Amino acid sequence: MILTVTLNTALDVTYRVPALVPHTSHRVADHAERPGGKGVNVARVLAALGHETVVTGFAGGPTGDRLRALLAPVPRLTDALVTVAATTRRTLAVVDAAAGDTTQFNEAGAAVTPEEWTAFRTRYAELLPGAAAVALCGSLPPGVHVGAYAELIRTARAAGVPVLLDTAGEPLRRGIAARPDLVKPNADELAGLTGSRDPRRATQDARRRGAHAVVTSLGPDGLLAATPDGLWQATPPAPVHGNPTGAGDSVVAALLAGLVTGTEWPTRLAHAVALSVATVLSPVAGEFDETAYEALLPRITVRELAAAA
Amino acid sequence: MILTVTLNTALDVTYRVPALVPHTSHRVADHAERPGGKGVNVARVLAALGHETVVTGFAGGPTGDRLRALLAPVPRLTDALVTVAATTRRTLAVVDAAAGDTTQFNEAGAAVTPEEWTAFRTRYAELLPGAAAVALCGSLPPGVHVGAYAELIRTARAAGVPVLLDTAGEPLRRGIAARPDLVKPNADELAGLTGSRDPRRATQDARRRGAHAVVTSLGPDGLLAATPDGLWQATPPAPVHGNPTGAGDSVVAALLAGLVTGTEWPTRLAHAVALSVATVLSPVAGEFDETAYEALLPRITVRELAAAA
Repeated sequence: MILTVTLNTALDVTYRVPALVPHTSHRVADHAERPGGKGVNVARVLAALGHETVVTGFAGGPTGDRLRALLAPVPRLTDALVTVAATTRRTLAVVDAAAGDTTQFNEAGAAVTPEEWTAFRTRYAELLPGAAAVALCGSLPPGVHVGAYAELIRTARAAGVPVLLDTAGEPLRRGIAARPDLVKPNADELAGLTGSRDPRRATQDARRRGAHAVVTSLGPDGLLAATPDGLWQATPPAPVHGNPTGAGDSVVAALLAGLVTGTEWPTRLAHAVALSVATVLSPVAGEFDETAYEALLPRITVRELAAAA
Repeated sequence: MILTVTLNTALDVTYRVPALVPHTSHRVADHAERPGGKGVNVARVLAALGHETVVTGFAGGPTGDRLRALLAPVPRLTDALVTVAATTRRTLAVVDAAAGDTTQFNEAGAAVTPEEWTAFRTRYAELLPGAAAVALCGSLPPGVHVGAYAELIRTARAAGVPVLLDTAGEPLRRGIAARPDLVKPNADELAGLTGSRDPRRATQDARRRGAHAVVTSLGPDGLLAATPDGLWQATPPAPVHGNPTGAGDSVVAALLAGLVTGTEWPTRLAHAVALSVATVLSPVAGEFDETAYEALLPRITVRELAAAA
């Protein structure tokens, strides 16, 4: 199975309104709830691709209960979340049907106690031996130390389990230094880490800081990968219009799937770009259009920029 | 005690953001929850004024539980809500700290079953004999018939309990025909009912349709009252800047307080305008500034426009 860790889970709520007009009142006839948090999204995509997945992290209160109730019916997905006292946060996406855009509100996560963090570490250590790979995804909630991902990476490496890190800021900086197998920053996160806005230079710099491989998301321009086997760029055939929510999580899911099945980097990157574009094209945020995924796969360009160093 | 009925209760959530920028992502560091729905707000104001109040209507699911948990510690307020299967709706106010304005999102209420409506009618009939007055407030949830307020008014009148109605549209039209003691429309609701944008004409027209007295909210211009004792306008000393959320509910609370204590109309109207302005001036939506209330009271102008017909 593939293990995904989401320390700052969320219940993702979507309000669909005819038009968002600030300083007015809106009647919300249509609202939807989804289980959320990056690692939860990654697990749902992996499960849809046919992989057995286990979700861990924290959930609490009525929103935590709702999150778990929404995960329960997902095939090939097992809930191994640790129950905490604090109520799981909500995120709200207000979709403006006229403009076709989304305005996002993300509640801050509630604090995790030292005892809950210890309970999580025990759960994580119990789950690792059964995992073919582990993904550590998203922000850290209050109460969890900034070196938490570095600690979890060292535990995974000690257990011989390949580990992917998808986060930002100081947790990313410390995590990279703990030598994960793969990190997946976007261009902004990478600029924050390296100080460089040149994606190629920043990607290679991030790799020198300790990650075995770095795959940078370039948004509509695809992915840039610095790996032990060489430097590649994978590009979709044409820009697409849609909802980019969850596109990065689909990249992580495809990279994990490629990692556990041992596919070559060019193939792995083509899958990741196709899945990401198929996620943008899906009418439901965070889900992917299977037909588009299959149709896009042969149309992704993967170019080698430099051979292995 | 004073009984307030809220058939479409809500958990009112406030997100405070530095600035609301459509099509961007906002981190919500500060979010608050309050028990909501017009009749619930009226009861909280009455309880703060020192009146024993009982709240009835519907509540269900985790948001209903949260609503009730927030009501539990309020002194002089008793929870007599009927538990229903459907989850109580939420409303969201996004407060833009820079602009000082609010963008509102109101979820539609969940449906009430015929059995739940019957259970409510039984509860209402049990509570009426102990009530000095009853207020029927807000919109009707799906599953409750459009003549529900008319029915509840007839039941209150048969029990000899004075009844105030604060709603809009067809429930207001049918409710007025059932001859309530008092209705409190705003100018828009009144225009919808009577077809007239002239507040004086529309208020008198509404009274002729069956209400014993009609008090129309004119926003910053105060109140216009058509009563068996005469026609009055009550006006605040100067326009104020603040959050008008809950100002109408404070008017209802003051009118109910005046009704049960039997104060003269001019005094009753002065209290209602002062309390309404003190609510606009409060930093917390739906609460009132006690010092401002007392300071404003002697400064409200009440002018008689016509003597009793």
